[in-house]
Amino acid sequence: MKAEDLKGDGCTVFAPATVANIGCGFDILGFALKNPGDRLSLKISRTEGIRIETRSAFDTIPAEPEKNTAGVAVQAMLDEMQAEFGVNLLIEKGLPAGSGLGSSAASAVSAVYALNRLLPAPYDNHALVQFALEGEKIASAGQYHADNVAPCLFGGIVLARSAQPPDIIELPVPRNLFCVIIHPHVEIKTAVSRRKLPEQIPLKTAVRQWGNIAGMISAFYRNDLHLLARSLEDSIAEPVRSGQIPHYDEIKQAALRSGAIGCNISGSGPSVFALTTGIENARRICASMEKILNENETRYDAFVSVINPNGAEIISVD
Amino acid sequence: MKAEDLKGDGCTVFAPATVANIGCGFDILGFALKNPGDRLSLKISRTEGIRIETRSAFDTIPAEPEKNTAGVAVQAMLDEMQAEFGVNLLIEKGLPAGSGLGSSAASAVSAVYALNRLLPAPYDNHALVQFALEGEKIASAGQYHADNVAPCLFGGIVLARSAQPPDIIELPVPRNLFCVIIHPHVEIKTAVSRRKLPEQIPLKTAVRQWGNIAGMISAFYRNDLHLLARSLEDSIAEPVRSGQIPHYDEIKQAALRSGAIGCNISGSGPSVFALTTGIENARRICASMEKILNENETRYDAFVSVINPNGAEIISVD
Repeated sequence: MKAEDLKGDGCTVFAPATVANIGCGFDILGFALKNPGDRLSLKISRTEGIRIETRSAFDTIPAEPEKNTAGVAVQAMLDEMQAEFGVNLLIEKGLPAGSGLGSSAASAVSAVYALNRLLPAPYDNHALVQFALEGEKIASAGQYHADNVAPCLFGGIVLARSAQPPDIIELPVPRNLFCVIIHPHVEIKTAVSRRKLPEQIPLKTAVRQWGNIAGMISAFYRNDLHLLARSLEDSIAEPVRSGQIPHYDEIKQAALRSGAIGCNISGSGPSVFALTTGIENARRICASMEKILNENETRYDAFVSVINPNGAEIISVD
Repeated sequence: MKAEDLKGDGCTVFAPATVANIGCGFDILGFALKNPGDRLSLKISRTEGIRIETRSAFDTIPAEPEKNTAGVAVQAMLDEMQAEFGVNLLIEKGLPAGSGLGSSAASAVSAVYALNRLLPAPYDNHALVQFALEGEKIASAGQYHADNVAPCLFGGIVLARSAQPPDIIELPVPRNLFCVIIHPHVEIKTAVSRRKLPEQIPLKTAVRQWGNIAGMISAFYRNDLHLLARSLEDSIAEPVRSGQIPHYDEIKQAALRSGAIGCNISGSGPSVFALTTGIENARRICASMEKILNENETRYDAFVSVINPNGAEIISVD
C-alpha cells in the first residue's frame, strides 16, 4: 500500500487505562477506564520506518521502535499491509509504565488504532487485537495475553477466551458500575512480576479459581452484584503479588468496609482497583483507601472512573 | 419433627441422569437429561432409621444406609430436622453405577427430594443440594463436588461456583439443545478416576481451561453455538481419562464429523456425550457414534435426550 491510498495524513487518538484480571480472571478478563490514558499522534511519512517521540511526566519510554510497544505493534500492521510509507509517532503518556494499568497496551493500541483510521478498508477490532498483541508481547516476557489490549480497543468488560489466536468476547457491563484506582508509587514490571508466579498450581486451587471466573461471567450477564462480590476473589496472583504493594491488605479492607463490591490488584500491580455503583459510592470508597496511604505517608495517585464503554477513540484526523 | 406433622405417608420421585464437567468445567458445570434416570419410592416409618431396598438391572447397590448415597443424604436431612421417624426407600436404578452419568447423585437427590415433598415447610433446592452432597461425598473419595447433584435437582444447565458451601447458579439453556450419550460397558468408579488426575497443573493449562470455561458460560447466555463449540475443550481430565474409554478418539471424531457442536467425556466416564440442536441431528450423530462401537464389537447403551429443564420430579404422593 502507498501513502496516497490513505484517507489522511495523520490522526490523534486516546487509548484508556485498563484493569486486567479483575481479580479471578488471570490473563483472560479486563475492563477499560475513562481516565487516565495515553494520547498518540500519528503522522504518515514518505520515508519508510518508524520514528517515535515520547513525552511522559513519569518515566522514560524507549524511543527505539523495536523496544516500544507502539513501535512493534504498528510495524506488525505496516508489514501486513506491505506499506510503502512510514509513520512518525508522538506518544504522550498519561499512564506510568509498571503501574498495572495497561500502559504498554495503551501505547500499542493507540498506534494501531490511529493507523487503522487512515486505511481505505480498515481492520475490525478483532484483527487490530493481533497487531497490538505483537507490541504487548515485548512488555510481557514474550507471552501473549490480551486482557489489557482487548478492553483498551473494545471498551467495556472483555473476555479474551484465547490470546493466540485472539478470541475476544464483549461482556455486558453492570448498570452504573464505577471503578476506583489507587496507584501507589512503586513500579512493578509485568515481565518481572510474571516470573514470580508459580508455574504449577494445585488442581483444587484451579477449580476454585474457575468457579469464581464462571460466577463473575454470570454476574455480568445477570447484572448480579452480589454474585460479582462473591466471585471477585483471586487464589493465584493476589497471594504472590499483594506483598509487593504497600499496605495492600489495609487498603482492600478499607474499600470493602466502605461498601465496595470487591477490591483486588489491577493487572500485575501495584495499582489496586475497587468496584462499586454510582459516583458517590466511588468517591467515598476512594477516600477510605487514600486515607490508609496518607496515614502511612505513601505517595500515590487516585482515580475514579465509570467503566468506559468505548475503548480507544479518535480525537482528530488531519 | 414427628411423623404426624408430615403432609403424606410417602411419595415416588424420578431423578435424572446428569452430565458433569461439560468438557472444560471440571467440578463446576453440569446439565440434566430427560432420560435415563432413577425412580425412588419413600415411605415414612414410625420406626427410626433408614431401610433400603434396591432394584437394579446393572449392578449391586449397597443396601446399608451408611454406604448408599441415598441413605447418607436422607440421614443428613433427618438429622437436621431432628426427625422422630424413619424412612423405607425402594430405589429402582435406571442408571448404572460408574457410568459417568451421575448415578450416585441421582440416588442422593431422589431421596432428599422425596422426603422434602412431605415436609410442612419444604427446603428450597439450594438447601437440598447440601443434603444431597453429603451422600454424593461418599461416592467421591470424600470430596464435595456439586456438578451432578445440582443439575439433577435444578434441571437445565447449572454452575456450582462453589461446592462447599454450595453456591448454585442456573444458566440459560441454548434453544433446542440436545444431548447424545454413548455409554460403553466399562465401569469407572469416580473415586478411583479422581485419584488418577494430577494434583498440580501448569498455570498455562489452567489459563487455557478457564478461558474456555468463561467462553462456555458466555455461550450459554448468548445462545452462541459457535462460541460453545470453540469452548468445549478439556485440557485437564480428558487427556488422562480418555485412555480408559474404548475407541474414545474415534467416537469423538465421528460425532464432530457428523456435525456435533462438541463431544467429550461425561463426568469421569466412560460415558461420552455430544451436543447438537434438534432431534434429527441428535439421532444422526448418535448413529455415527454407535457405528464405531458396533464395528469394534464393544457393548454400549445409547441415549438421545433434550436438556431436561426440570430436574428431579414428583411422580406420585401417597
